[in-house]
Amino acid sequence: MKEEFLLGKYSVAIVGATGAVGTKMKEMLENSSLPIESIKFLASKRSAGKEISFKGVTYLIEELVNDSFEGVDIALFSAGGSISKQYANEAVRRGCVVIDNTSAFRMEKDIPLVVPEVNSEALKNHQGIIANPNCSTIQMMVALEPIRQAYGLDRIIVSTYQAVSGAGMSAINELKTQTSQMLAGETKVEANILPCSGDEKHYPLAFNALPQIDVFSEDDYTNEEWKMVNETKKIMEDDTIKVSATCVRIPVMTGHSESVYIEIKTDQVTPDDIKNILSQSEGIILEDEPKEQIYPQALTSVDKKEVFVGRVRRDLDVTTGFHLWVVSDNLLKGAAWNSVQIAERLHAMSLVRVNN
Amino acid sequence: MKEEFLLGKYSVAIVGATGAVGTKMKEMLENSSLPIESIKFLASKRSAGKEISFKGVTYLIEELVNDSFEGVDIALFSAGGSISKQYANEAVRRGCVVIDNTSAFRMEKDIPLVVPEVNSEALKNHQGIIANPNCSTIQMMVALEPIRQAYGLDRIIVSTYQAVSGAGMSAINELKTQTSQMLAGETKVEANILPCSGDEKHYPLAFNALPQIDVFSEDDYTNEEWKMVNETKKIMEDDTIKVSATCVRIPVMTGHSESVYIEIKTDQVTPDDIKNILSQSEGIILEDEPKEQIYPQALTSVDKKEVFVGRVRRDLDVTTGFHLWVVSDNLLKGAAWNSVQIAERLHAMSLVRVNN
Repeated sequence: MKEEFLLGKYSVAIVGATGAVGTKMKEMLENSSLPIESIKFLASKRSAGKEISFKGVTYLIEELVNDSFEGVDIALFSAGGSISKQYANEAVRRGCVVIDNTSAFRMEKDIPLVVPEVNSEALKNHQGIIANPNCSTIQMMVALEPIRQAYGLDRIIVSTYQAVSGAGMSAINELKTQTSQMLAGETKVEANILPCSGDEKHYPLAFNALPQIDVFSEDDYTNEEWKMVNETKKIMEDDTIKVSATCVRIPVMTGHSESVYIEIKTDQVTPDDIKNILSQSEGIILEDEPKEQIYPQALTSVDKKEVFVGRVRRDLDVTTGFHLWVVSDNLLKGAAWNSVQIAERLHAMSLVRVNN
Repeated sequence: MKEEFLLGKYSVAIVGATGAVGTKMKEMLENSSLPIESIKFLASKRSAGKEISFKGVTYLIEELVNDSFEGVDIALFSAGGSISKQYANEAVRRGCVVIDNTSAFRMEKDIPLVVPEVNSEALKNHQGIIANPNCSTIQMMVALEPIRQAYGLDRIIVSTYQAVSGAGMSAINELKTQTSQMLAGETKVEANILPCSGDEKHYPLAFNALPQIDVFSEDDYTNEEWKMVNETKKIMEDDTIKVSATCVRIPVMTGHSESVYIEIKTDQVTPDDIKNILSQSEGIILEDEPKEQIYPQALTSVDKKEVFVGRVRRDLDVTTGFHLWVVSDNLLKGAAWNSVQIAERLHAMSLVRVNN
């Protein structure tokens, strides 16, 4: 096996190719500038043999096994944390760079957790695995990093309005079924997946708001809430930032919304100052014209790569406090696009090893 | 006209009897301990002559005119602010007590703004009109007043998840139609009412989250957000409480949810202390067993009079900070029940004049 550190044409694999995020990873790669020589689509035995189209060419989905990664340069994982734990190191052992969209490795000290607009530099220290942050964290980081750079960031309090597609295809279908049934007048609808497939009880999401995403953990915060807290500190490389989160699932298919309160470290800053900075920042579209009723919406964020920020306004009491409304397509910037963007950066920074 | 201040049997009127809230006012009165001698149902000319049933007896809806209030002791208004402005004083002139569910008089200095669990004493100074607070304010007041009594309240930051029924019957129907259309695969659906019937632009709420309730006002806050700020200070009779709000409509039929962050004025308080207080407070049901996945939900709050509180937990950084999840039926405690409850208190406190 000849190994070279050079710009080249990559052999790419998607692990979890049939999932809600995997499908979007394929679309993002089809439109990516990443020079791809070959691609393979990996999934469970159940999906193996099915056809999938990439740039007009039909591929067969292959069953995921350790040897799937022979000769692969870049693998995008989005098939659940246990699959990542089982296969990511096997892939790395074969010379592959893994960009992992699960929570399996995010908080491991030596594994970079990357939002390209925020901390691409962390990619330089990668040892084979790069973690993609949680969807709700990513969009908040894109919105807040330019403000932090300009004014310092002391505190974040976030309440989320998260879409069901973050919980995968089966959760999307469950919401659709429940919604049809409730529109038809049924009052008792079945729930088998949400709020969290791995937990004991399940509740309808249709016409409801569920203040639980992932399982409950320390201090009665959910894992999703802890992810927002811990990942923020790791990505911003600042353990002193105060962060608390309340994570809520609402009946939206795609597009996470977030009500974000921040306190900055600089006095005399106005909402217009913050809007000016946001409007010039990478990956952000400022949608903030209250008089014209222009503000970010989940529905209008779908299929877009950017993070939309609006409703920027001063806190009514704390002079360094501001409120923002942050929306993004959770399957794209929150997952597939951020992963492909990391691959593009690795390429641009010559950090991918080409296995011939 | 003989006028007596005594406990008696009342002549009651509902103004806006066919609306989303008016319908619930009728239901609440049917199950109220208020001694009702007669009742009349008032609405626009369009609804006049339609039949309505109350305690098994059929009534005809009457057209609202000034003389409708002759001999009426208690009138519950929920037909929009302009109707209240036009008729409430006419009703008072005829000896009637008006309990007004609109925003028409809420911030007027001499008009009590009442949540019975919080400030019934304010009823004593009424001069004919009593204002029912905004739905999103009421449930937050019920949840926070016992905490304020015990520990003092320095600050509130609230993000709401509000149901469509707060915007009336036509908005409910619009959401149903949009939802059916989107489930059927339509991507462009019509919107003529939401986010705010009186504003220029309209957006779909189905599978969306709209960060606008009511029109935009000072400092780029919406009127709904200002209501939460100003009404809180008036009800708690404390202008020094810091309050900021972000009000968001989500695709829920009934049941407002709120992510509430508070800072209290006492150190060394634990989430268990707060839960203990809430569990013993009037009008509150504590639903807070994270290990059992028990927390308040919009769907399970429907048709219940109480305010449900859960997810009580400490802020991760500020020792006097706590987070709560507060849910209630916006048509009941948020509107109809709070109004009828005010009528019951007026009766119990001998504050209704009986017009014979």
